[in-house]
Amino acid sequence: MNKKLLSAGLALVLGAGYTVAALAQAKPEVLVKQRQAVMTLHGKYLGPLAGMAQGKIPYNADIVARNAAYLDVLDKMPWDGFTESTKDLKDVKTAALPAIWNEPAKFKEAQERFQLEVRNLVAATKGGDEGTIKAAIGAVGKACGGCHENFRQKQQ
Amino acid sequence: MNKKLLSAGLALVLGAGYTVAALAQAKPEVLVKQRQAVMTLHGKYLGPLAGMAQGKIPYNADIVARNAAYLDVLDKMPWDGFTESTKDLKDVKTAALPAIWNEPAKFKEAQERFQLEVRNLVAATKGGDEGTIKAAIGAVGKACGGCHENFRQKQQ
Repeated sequence: MNKKLLSAGLALVLGAGYTVAALAQAKPEVLVKQRQAVMTLHGKYLGPLAGMAQGKIPYNADIVARNAAYLDVLDKMPWDGFTESTKDLKDVKTAALPAIWNEPAKFKEAQERFQLEVRNLVAATKGGDEGTIKAAIGAVGKACGGCHENFRQKQQ
Repeated sequence: MNKKLLSAGLALVLGAGYTVAALAQAKPEVLVKQRQAVMTLHGKYLGPLAGMAQGKIPYNADIVARNAAYLDVLDKMPWDGFTESTKDLKDVKTAALPAIWNEPAKFKEAQERFQLEVRNLVAATKGGDEGTIKAAIGAVGKACGGCHENFRQKQQ
């Protein structure tokens, strides 16, 4: 393979400030940025579904099925970003609470509940009953709260 | 379903500043944040593979297969964020170039090339030959460049 091309491509992907050494052991501020990116996308793909479940925007079964499938992958992504190295950062804005590291079992349980409810939503989208699907969307929203209530600073 | 619970969960997910109306027609600055979030995750999951292909970090077939599968979903996510409404934003930092809107066919072609190379990488991870997989990683990196060279401001 062409290593020079790959290097050029990689620099383009990651920006010049990134080094492979940093990737192998990502810097705390990079980990925070990556986990926040996942949360942004949870919002992107769950938000419209919540709007549909509440009757505030028109129900669209195709969008629900697509977004549920996306969430079923995205729900695996944030957790390895919550390393101890990200605990006491200065100059990095994060709403992560110390409970994440003080109560790891409870944090893990909240993650798994979220993943379970997303799987249930994906299963519901295959059955096709709108009421069941909307209830499953609600359960995902509630499961988000399981982390956000206990492990994230209250948002203003 | 319990609408009150869902509303509470939704507010927790999205933050109080978010409204469902805004979600139905997302604000330009939200679209930029969401598409940049996807790019951050492209970097998270492609970066280590590029390091492996270059021999800079140890090759791990399980991580390659997992990350390739993640990229195969993430590569669908940025594009709807490049709306005309995000073209001339003040107070929002973005490296998106006007070529995105001036040459939409070429932009679309670059997206599809990236998605094709990711699919090829996923297929390669199922065959299991390390050389083929590393070449496929290189091709993905090169395909990233197809967008970044023409449609993104050069990074310092």
